[in-house]
Amino acid sequence: MEVHTFLIYLAIILLAARIFGEVADYFKIPPVIGELVAGIIIGPSVFGLIADSEQINLLAQIGIIMLLFEVGLETDIGRLRASGANATIVAVAGVILPLISGFALSYYVFDFSLLASLLIGSTLTATSIGITLRVLRDLKKQSSREAQIIIGAAVLDDIIGIVLLAMLYDFSVSGEVKLWDTAKVLLSIVLFFIISPLAAKTVSLVIQKWDEKSKIAGLVPTMTVALILFFAWLAYQMGAPELLGGFAAGIALSRQFFSFSAFEEQEEQSKEFNHRVEEQMKPIIHLFTPIFFVAIGLSLNLRVINWESSFIWMLTGSLLAVGILGKLLSGFLLRKESLIKQLIVGTAMIPRGEVGLIFANIGLTTGIIQNEVYASIILVITITTLVAPFALRYMYAYAPSEPAEHADGEAEQNHH
Amino acid sequence: MEVHTFLIYLAIILLAARIFGEVADYFKIPPVIGELVAGIIIGPSVFGLIADSEQINLLAQIGIIMLLFEVGLETDIGRLRASGANATIVAVAGVILPLISGFALSYYVFDFSLLASLLIGSTLTATSIGITLRVLRDLKKQSSREAQIIIGAAVLDDIIGIVLLAMLYDFSVSGEVKLWDTAKVLLSIVLFFIISPLAAKTVSLVIQKWDEKSKIAGLVPTMTVALILFFAWLAYQMGAPELLGGFAAGIALSRQFFSFSAFEEQEEQSKEFNHRVEEQMKPIIHLFTPIFFVAIGLSLNLRVINWESSFIWMLTGSLLAVGILGKLLSGFLLRKESLIKQLIVGTAMIPRGEVGLIFANIGLTTGIIQNEVYASIILVITITTLVAPFALRYMYAYAPSEPAEHADGEAEQNHH
Repeated sequence: MEVHTFLIYLAIILLAARIFGEVADYFKIPPVIGELVAGIIIGPSVFGLIADSEQINLLAQIGIIMLLFEVGLETDIGRLRASGANATIVAVAGVILPLISGFALSYYVFDFSLLASLLIGSTLTATSIGITLRVLRDLKKQSSREAQIIIGAAVLDDIIGIVLLAMLYDFSVSGEVKLWDTAKVLLSIVLFFIISPLAAKTVSLVIQKWDEKSKIAGLVPTMTVALILFFAWLAYQMGAPELLGGFAAGIALSRQFFSFSAFEEQEEQSKEFNHRVEEQMKPIIHLFTPIFFVAIGLSLNLRVINWESSFIWMLTGSLLAVGILGKLLSGFLLRKESLIKQLIVGTAMIPRGEVGLIFANIGLTTGIIQNEVYASIILVITITTLVAPFALRYMYAYAPSEPAEHADGEAEQNHH
Repeated sequence: MEVHTFLIYLAIILLAARIFGEVADYFKIPPVIGELVAGIIIGPSVFGLIADSEQINLLAQIGIIMLLFEVGLETDIGRLRASGANATIVAVAGVILPLISGFALSYYVFDFSLLASLLIGSTLTATSIGITLRVLRDLKKQSSREAQIIIGAAVLDDIIGIVLLAMLYDFSVSGEVKLWDTAKVLLSIVLFFIISPLAAKTVSLVIQKWDEKSKIAGLVPTMTVALILFFAWLAYQMGAPELLGGFAAGIALSRQFFSFSAFEEQEEQSKEFNHRVEEQMKPIIHLFTPIFFVAIGLSLNLRVINWESSFIWMLTGSLLAVGILGKLLSGFLLRKESLIKQLIVGTAMIPRGEVGLIFANIGLTTGIIQNEVYASIILVITITTLVAPFALRYMYAYAPSEPAEHADGEAEQNHH
């Protein structure tokens, strides 16, 4: 790609994301929806101004990693641990229910092959962690108790998605599932989550010490970004999705991490450092994040869909029902929560995104599924992604409010 | 490029830039030298950890555009105008002297073809605006009077470089120079410089108004970056180098621009907005800038040089002499300045970089010059780039100090 093309693509993406985000906000719609729609409109679905290119996609990946970093930064690790059991219930049920019902629907009702049915079921499992967390942030609910359950469940969900992908890959190649391979992937990811926050914490302390001595400006943003990118890479090397590396780095640098770490004596200094990291990382996070959501819109080519095929609508309708109900039901398993909180957690898990698209693309390119099924999956992903944020905002309007610690941290920067 | 490869490349580039920059600073060497050396060491010249890839190069281009934006932001447009005549003298002399002497040397002494000799002369003309400005910033001299002459001359120099490139291209294709084509390029660039700061100022006022109303965080960094990228693209469309678009956007958003604009009544509000832009853009500028300097190091493959060829050393030595003397002499034309300031201006114009590399690459790929000449040019570029910052720092140690307005703006952020 020519330099000038790249520059104008980026400028258009940033501008379109902002304009559509603001318009959405004006109509009380979550801005992330505006950004997705911006991508759909400037992308191949409508105007085709911008192609879904590798170069833009690389920046988009940095965007989602940065968003997960920010979420990690604002995650209360105590609350996250406390919500562990609940998050696991929601994640596991939210994977198993859509997987089994999606598989059964495809295999028994629509008569697809075993492999295609497994793939279709799998595309329904993984929650789009990005969309969900962006909506919570837009609603300033990222620090609430239910948000911690949602974050935990979404992270587990992503891990289960990767494990499923590995199993499905084994199965499509050799016709059998190698349990040892699956176990290795799982073990490696667990290992990553045990060591990475501590490792990232250690590195961040080195950065902090270094920052006290350095006379050249820009140490905090460059070294924090390098740290995040390194842990994203490390996550990939250990079999986990890259974005979870960003999350681990964020947790390690979060204020709440200190009370659980062995570095308590330096707490005061570290808090000041943590504040500087947050301040200087915000513009970078704000710059990269919208690129990701616009890129999702760019990747959804709604033109491939034959809107007159009744088969597509039947398949889409039934997959949607199965996909939405599966996630909603998993929320109702949280017996101790109020009905509205159960609904919120279930709804927050509804959007499908990146991982579902990856599954669908693998299916299409390997010939496991055909164009019409692919179109259906894209429709399901688009609809779940667009509907859930609306529903969440609506539900929160009826939920009793709960005091959230740094719910207004986000707004601070913008009021002057 | 795979996402994880891209992530680790970026992490390595940022980390290497910082480590070598800090080591350089410790030994009183300008950090930019450290960053160039970092690129040489992690690149194909030494370890070959990272290839000189298109994806990294796109980010590097954003880096140099961002640096020029920052320079524009800190440029006192009144001083820049006042230094216009001096800057023009330095720029024109600094192009003509190396061009003619480089051409004569190649054509009459080394017996190269007419086209090759013109190309070699041209590679000696263009100052690396990036290196020079980074050194001035590192020395906190970017607001001094001589810096304004240097900035003006470097900008003109880049424009003349582009015009030369267009002429040389015409000549290599058709065997003649089309004066009308050259005039069109020149006219278009002049037009760009007349309209773009005013246009950028108008856009920035729209952003400012918008920012007062917006409730979604991140408007300032995303819209400022979009503005910069758009003007970089516009510069290219009008025949100017992209980085000058960044410079124009920076000038438009600078504090000093107001007293020369029709928007004086809003001055107070605008100054506050300008401060916010600076604060929020700094982390982004600091993140992208080092990528550019490391990328220059990556692009200098010193392995292509046959170090035992005496021809290479003779050619390199004489081109170096011609290239350095031509720029130094242009500094001495500033009759009203003290000898040390004349020396500083001349020395600041010595580093060759991007544009010279572009000329050399075109020459190599079109077969106008051969490998050995290419190697010589790379050596000349490397040496001028590495030597000038040392010399500048040394000279400034002996120059009488002059009160500089925001010389310490840079340091602020880092002291806590």
